[in-house]
Amino acid sequence: TTTYKICLLPGDGIGPEIIAEGRKVLDALGAKFDASFEYTEALLGGIAIDETGEALPEDTLRVAKASDAVLLAAVGGPKWDTTDPNKPRPEQGLLGIRKALGLYANLRPVRIFGALADASSLKPEVIDGVDLVIVRELTGGLYFGLRERFYDEEGCGADGATGQRAYDTLEYREYEIERIVRHAFETARKRKGRVHSIDKANVLETSRLWREVAHRIAGEYPDVEVVDMLVDNAAMQLINNPAQFDVVVTENMFGDILSDEASMLTGSLGMLASASLGDGTALYEPSHGSAPDIAGQGIANPLAQILSVEMMLRYSFDMQDAADAVAAAVESVLDEGWRTGDIANNTTPKDRIVGTAAMGDLVVSKL
Amino acid sequence: TTTYKICLLPGDGIGPEIIAEGRKVLDALGAKFDASFEYTEALLGGIAIDETGEALPEDTLRVAKASDAVLLAAVGGPKWDTTDPNKPRPEQGLLGIRKALGLYANLRPVRIFGALADASSLKPEVIDGVDLVIVRELTGGLYFGLRERFYDEEGCGADGATGQRAYDTLEYREYEIERIVRHAFETARKRKGRVHSIDKANVLETSRLWREVAHRIAGEYPDVEVVDMLVDNAAMQLINNPAQFDVVVTENMFGDILSDEASMLTGSLGMLASASLGDGTALYEPSHGSAPDIAGQGIANPLAQILSVEMMLRYSFDMQDAADAVAAAVESVLDEGWRTGDIANNTTPKDRIVGTAAMGDLVVSKL
Ligand SMILES: CC(C)[C@H](C(=O)O)[C@@H](O)C(=O)O
Ligand SMILES: CC(C)[C@H](C(=O)O)[C@@H](O)C(=O)O
Repeated sequence: TTTYKICLLPGDGIGPEIIAEGRKVLDALGAKFDASFEYTEALLGGIAIDETGEALPEDTLRVAKASDAVLLAAVGGPKWDTTDPNKPRPEQGLLGIRKALGLYANLRPVRIFGALADASSLKPEVIDGVDLVIVRELTGGLYFGLRERFYDEEGCGADGATGQRAYDTLEYREYEIERIVRHAFETARKRKGRVHSIDKANVLETSRLWREVAHRIAGEYPDVEVVDMLVDNAAMQLINNPAQFDVVVTENMFGDILSDEASMLTGSLGMLASASLGDGTALYEPSHGSAPDIAGQGIANPLAQILSVEMMLRYSFDMQDAADAVAAAVESVLDEGWRTGDIANNTTPKDRIVGTAAMGDLVVSKL
Repeated sequence: TTTYKICLLPGDGIGPEIIAEGRKVLDALGAKFDASFEYTEALLGGIAIDETGEALPEDTLRVAKASDAVLLAAVGGPKWDTTDPNKPRPEQGLLGIRKALGLYANLRPVRIFGALADASSLKPEVIDGVDLVIVRELTGGLYFGLRERFYDEEGCGADGATGQRAYDTLEYREYEIERIVRHAFETARKRKGRVHSIDKANVLETSRLWREVAHRIAGEYPDVEVVDMLVDNAAMQLINNPAQFDVVVTENMFGDILSDEASMLTGSLGMLASASLGDGTALYEPSHGSAPDIAGQGIANPLAQILSVEMMLRYSFDMQDAADAVAAAVESVLDEGWRTGDIANNTTPKDRIVGTAAMGDLVVSKL
């Protein structure tokens, strides 16, 4: 029996409720697949600010680094919203742990669950056959560049305007682009063999560097088709003809926007998970947020969290059979018509609408 | 009879073909609405590079500044694609004229034409009632900040990596945010009275400044409802529930991405026009590009160009009746089933599929 150490980060809002279901699934799998999981819970986000004054306490980072994988639920909430640069914000915990663990590759698969296809706001024929993964660079760009705000009393600059000024810096180095693009090509090899590299090379210098590096790496993968696409065009194509995409690779901010856009193809953000990978411990989380409006009511959808466990089994523990079992269990629960409120529609029978814990139990029952 | 001086910029690809139809419509209107239009053609984009070595020749800027309005078709094409920072690119012409004329407010209305509603990849019930306008900041942010590329031989920085590095700067000053947000609120007052202000305040310092300024301006418009929304969420909401939006205001790069995404709600980019306004001469153009693949074939859709003439009449010449006449003419041509190839579907009768010039003639016949 192999033992895996998992760092659990429940975070804020519905976080504690859904992570409990992820853990439930792991426990059920352990027995079947001859593995055991050891959990250590730690603080991240708003709750960490409340208890320690910092969004990413040192202790959390220590636990995460000593673990084989990190399972995160979600962070943030209106309680901690502020534009005051001197106040801590929950997101700093998320960004901090991404950076500290070197999680440069964020994988967000978008797949359509047959039973939920009608939840999409897109026509069935448009989302038919959609199966793509966004590979988002996660530790560079605007998220981590120098930023500053100051009051410009002298009104320097061509326009001589006084008042507040602020800037953020979008910076990339060659090796940062190289490793994420390479990751995308490796991923494409195991899938349909197509990479769309998204940039804004007609405007940004970082995008021109991105494109050059992408072309150089592409040379090493003659078996993979590569398409350059401008980010504005990509935003259109994702709606207009999403089935053309297999692997989509892009920088951090574009990836943030496009992956959320792509998530809507399914019509159910509550079903999408993501993996953040680097060279060491990886982190898994749902694509959705902490949903403070429904926190504590036991009605949140735990399936994205459970599917982030699937990704953990696949990428961190190489337990492909266990991962497949989770995917199949989720599919079968959906096929039987079980729904949490967010994925129910007006034809869902009332007695098939279940809460967070019941949904977790249903998945476990199918394993 | 008032005489208006119009600077025509045909640009590249299908540009010359569609701008001819815009001009045709203007000429037809002149007689009816007691106005006359004087045209001066100038070079911009790839054609300007070919003929003068520069994407925005000085002469073009002189003509534009001396005009009452600028009508642009489209610029760019694979012929001029390059990642070499020392070579001129067509987009520099577009960005250059936006900056030189101080066109800080880009208005992109998204409306659904009843006759084309089925062209959308979204379900009819989702796009029902969609009528929104994106107000994009156009002369600041990443588009105009300092950018640089260099070879880092010493590998400075925490990771000591050598290789190429590049950066772009996202910068905003208070007055730049203030004037565009104010523009959005003024626009909302004449519409449904709702403004969504889009930013990424949980990460970017420029966004936090944006949000603070937006809130301050909002105080002056108690009759307008204001909603802050993060850009990733906006990318989702535009697909999921587009009818919630009235006026959407955002910075340059977010506006580029979101306005193209929003354009796809209609399913027909060939129908969308935009106005770029500042304190002086304004510029009008289709939202689509130069479509080099179909250039010279006489099959391009001129309707977005014609609808950009509608916006010119409205915003630069205050000829509301003439503008209404153009909008009604386009609607009536579509209602009769006339289509260019890009907006035809498989139930469009062959004999109702027309070319660029015939479509222009049809619109003129309805004025
Ligand atoms: C919470 C926020 C900082 C984060 C991001 O922008 O990366 C989130 O939107 C995400 O995509 O994981
Ligand atoms: C051509 C390009 C530079 C331009 C932009 O990004 O602004 C275009 O996409 C647009 O939206 O007008």
